[in-house]
Order: sequence, then structure tokens, then C-alpha cells
Amino acid sequence: MPNISYVDGVYQNYENSKININDRGYHFGDSVYEVILFNEGIFYDFEGHINRLFGSLNAINIKFHLSKISLKIIISNLIKINRISFGSVYIQVSRGIAERNHSYKGMNIKPLLSIIVNKKLNNINNKLNGVKAITLDDNRWSRPDIKTTQLLPNVLAKTEANKKGAFEGIFIDSDGYVTEGSSSNIWIINYNNEIITRAIDGQILSGITRKTVAQFAKLNGLIVKEEKFKKEELYKSKEVFLTSASSFVTPIIKVDDIEINDGKIGQMSIDLRNLYFSELHNYQ
Amino acid sequence: MPNISYVDGVYQNYENSKININDRGYHFGDSVYEVILFNEGIFYDFEGHINRLFGSLNAINIKFHLSKISLKIIISNLIKINRISFGSVYIQVSRGIAERNHSYKGMNIKPLLSIIVNKKLNNINNKLNGVKAITLDDNRWSRPDIKTTQLLPNVLAKTEANKKGAFEGIFIDSDGYVTEGSSSNIWIINYNNEIITRAIDGQILSGITRKTVAQFAKLNGLIVKEEKFKKEELYKSKEVFLTSASSFVTPIIKVDDIEINDGKIGQMSIDLRNLYFSELHNYQ
Repeated sequence: MPNISYVDGVYQNYENSKININDRGYHFGDSVYEVILFNEGIFYDFEGHINRLFGSLNAINIKFHLSKISLKIIISNLIKINRISFGSVYIQVSRGIAERNHSYKGMNIKPLLSIIVNKKLNNINNKLNGVKAITLDDNRWSRPDIKTTQLLPNVLAKTEANKKGAFEGIFIDSDGYVTEGSSSNIWIINYNNEIITRAIDGQILSGITRKTVAQFAKLNGLIVKEEKFKKEELYKSKEVFLTSASSFVTPIIKVDDIEINDGKIGQMSIDLRNLYFSELHNYQ
Repeated sequence: MPNISYVDGVYQNYENSKININDRGYHFGDSVYEVILFNEGIFYDFEGHINRLFGSLNAINIKFHLSKISLKIIISNLIKINRISFGSVYIQVSRGIAERNHSYKGMNIKPLLSIIVNKKLNNINNKLNGVKAITLDDNRWSRPDIKTTQLLPNVLAKTEANKKGAFEGIFIDSDGYVTEGSSSNIWIINYNNEIITRAIDGQILSGITRKTVAQFAKLNGLIVKEEKFKKEELYKSKEVFLTSASSFVTPIIKVDDIEINDGKIGQMSIDLRNLYFSELHNYQ
């Protein structure tokens, strides 16, 4: 566990890192967040994450008082204090502290920023394992495109997956199409070697790793299509993988009871993962 | 504002009432809550609220360590300490404190109980005002029947209502039927003097005040029907009102741009409100 967190302007020991009981993030899930990885002082796609954070704040009308530059200084400082070389930083901004009332109209409150830094095992060069996934009905609210802390459906999906020995729960919309994972974007590769992931159509989060992987793949001459696909197509794909800030590119070798690629990690998924790591530093 | 709150076994001054930054209620909205009113030592429907709290905990698989009796003692004690005669008590139970991870599988954590007591103006005998409401698409997750802190859609709906000069936002499902208000149940009275509210069909919260009002109405020979109705029926109703723990029975005199009962409070709504207050003490 980390030693020092940041809460509303104050650096605190982990055990003493507390937020007020009347924080609207606690009462209402009235807050947004980001997770960013870093390695030896270099962030993975910092701009992408911070721009999305400000987009989320704007989407639910939270007027944040800090600039992107100030935020970067605070985050970098916290990482230094914690002396972590490879890890993740969790950033949450809630609307602020106020006596409990659903409506925030006329409330003159200051958004509350909290940051936690976690050490991560640097397993980038370890042997890559494929993971299992299950599918579930997408039962989230209508704005999964905003990165808010309305995450109970995701919590329940991920836990159900884990209980069934799987790593990820994949949400299926009411028309039978894959939306995204509980904490990742989902991709398939068909037998024409086309790499396919759902478009940013309001029903999924605009994944930062998703965007970067698509960009790198295209730069390397691979075909990337952004279109939705059904659960049955997922089952019949040549390869399936997920992307997320903390899982990078991770192959999925089984979905529900169906083995993908005979339960083996596909070569294109491995290539894309390696591409992600090798190219990333060029684009910082 | 209240002086003393209760957080995880400790009674604290309001300003010092804090929860750990890693509380899952804060990170994920992984928590449930209740609001109960009290007056001169008597709770409004305590059993109903506490039973629903335990039902909510059960629905999202939080294993709470306190009994209903222990909880009542803690709540009563907190009210006494704060020396409030008429007010509301807010009770929240989160899954507990843990390093951030969507899945709670295998986590051995203790649920965290926090309680806030608020003084309320005793305006039961004041002149009753009708309120305005607006309608909005119901964009919540699929389990609004569980009283969780997944409340951002409700927050946004209530704020939008307030910004338009209205008191409540009424959710309309994708088939055009009224589900419920952002923090209330919605009722209509038709020209046959039938009192109608949506059945407990999984798409609404099982309102405690809703249940009590229905019970009292039936006991007094009124016709209560539990069935869903469309937005257009709402517009054309003889009377419209809402029920909630903190608003009791409150007449709605305008929905969107449509005046109900020529914009005047209807007599049956007044009667039901008075019935609620007069009968409630008999059923404690």
C-alpha cells in the first residue's frame, strides 16, 4: 500500500487520508476519476487521461478550480514523495462537500480532488497469460461514456466474473451487441485479420489505451474497424483481446464456455501488445 | 448543521466526521442508504426503512455486522446527543475500506456505517404549497429498486428540475410510462377518484411512505390501484402528488407546461396528506 495520499490540498499518510462524510462523491457518486500508469517518471498517455478527466467534469457540470498543469505538478510530486518507479495514479474529483441534497443548483462549493498512488508489479516483460471472460447484460445508466464513479454495475459484473474464474465481465446491450468490459474495451480479430472494436457511440467509454492501440495498429499497416459486433461474433472470432490503462493489451482465450483460438493466445494479440509497449515511449 | 455524526463506531464533531479515502462507497458507489424522519422521539415507519436497508444490503451482497436492534440503539443515541426533536436521520452502509479494485471477491472487509442527523423545520402544520415537476427520460441503471448511492442520474434530474423552477424531476421509461421521481414516488388521481401509482415491478424503489399512504387510503375506503400510467395520463389527471419520507404527501400542480387541476392543490391530495399525519402515530 502507498504511504502518502493527497486529499484537497493536503498530503497525508495513507491511514489518515480521509474525506468529509458530506462529500457528494460519497453520498451520490457525484464524481469522476482517472487511472494513469507511469514508469520511471514517464506517464502512459497523460494528456489523453487528463483531457478525458476535464471532459468528464464538464459533462456533469463540475467547475474544477485547477489547471491541467497544476494537476500534473501535484501528481508528479506525489509520485516522487512515494518513491514509486512503476505504478498507477488514481485521481478522483467530486463536486465537493455540502449538506446532503440531491440538487446542486446554487451550491457554491469547491470540487474536491483526491489522489492515490499505487505501486504496480512491473510484469510487462513477464510471460503473458490469456484470460477468461464472461458476458452479462449491460445494465448501466445511459451515460457510460462519462467516467463517473457510478460503478456498482461494474463492481457486480467484475465480481461475478471473478467468482466464475474469469478476469473480466463483458457487457452486452439489449440488441445483443458487445458494449465494453467492466473496466476495459473489448476487441475482436476476424479471419480477414481485421481488428474490430465498437465505435465511440455514447454507449462505451472513450478508452485511452483503446485509442492509442488503434493508432499504433494503423501506423503499422493493420486494418482497424470501429463498428459494433454481436456476442456470437465474439465467440467465433479468430482472436479476442481487451485494452485498459492497467491491463494494456490482454488476450482473452475463453468467453463464457467458448474457447477462442482453441484456448491459446493469438499471435496478433501478442504483436499488438508488444507494439503498444515499444511505440508508446515515442509518443510521450 | 448537526454537531455530532457517527462514523464506524465513533461519534464525531461534524467537521471531523470523515471516511477513509479507500471507502468503496466513495470509489464505486458501492453502498446503500436510508433516510428516516423522527418527531419527539417517534420515528416515521422505522421498521419499514430498516427492513428495506437490510434488503438493499442483501441485494448487493454486503454482509452487515450489526443487528437491527443495535442499529436502532445507535441511531436513537445519536439523535439524543444532538438534542434534535424534529429531523431526519441519514444512514449509509458501504461495503467497507479496501485498496481500490472493482471486484470484491475474497475481500475480508467490514462494512462501514455512517449516520448523520439533520434538524428539519417542522412545517407539517404550515400552509401547504403545491409544487411543479418536469419529466425526463429514465436513464438509470437496471436496479433502481435497490436503494444504492448510484444517484448521479437522480442528482442531474433534480438539478435540472430546480433550474427550471420545479421541485421534482419525474422519470419516464422507454415505453413512455412514469417510473418515479428523482427522490419520490409519483401518484395520480383520475376522474373516478381512483388513486393510482406504479406497482413494485423492479423499475421503482419500494417507497416506505408510498406503502403507508396506500395502506391508510385503503383503510379509509379509498380506491388504490397499483399500475403504471403514461406521461399523457399524468397530464390529464384530476390530481397529481408525490410521496417521500421527507416530503410526506406533496401535491403537484404543474407537470412540464401542463397545469394540473387548473394549477390548484386538489382536495384529495390534502385529505391524503392529513390522513398520513393523523394515522401515522397509531401505527408506530
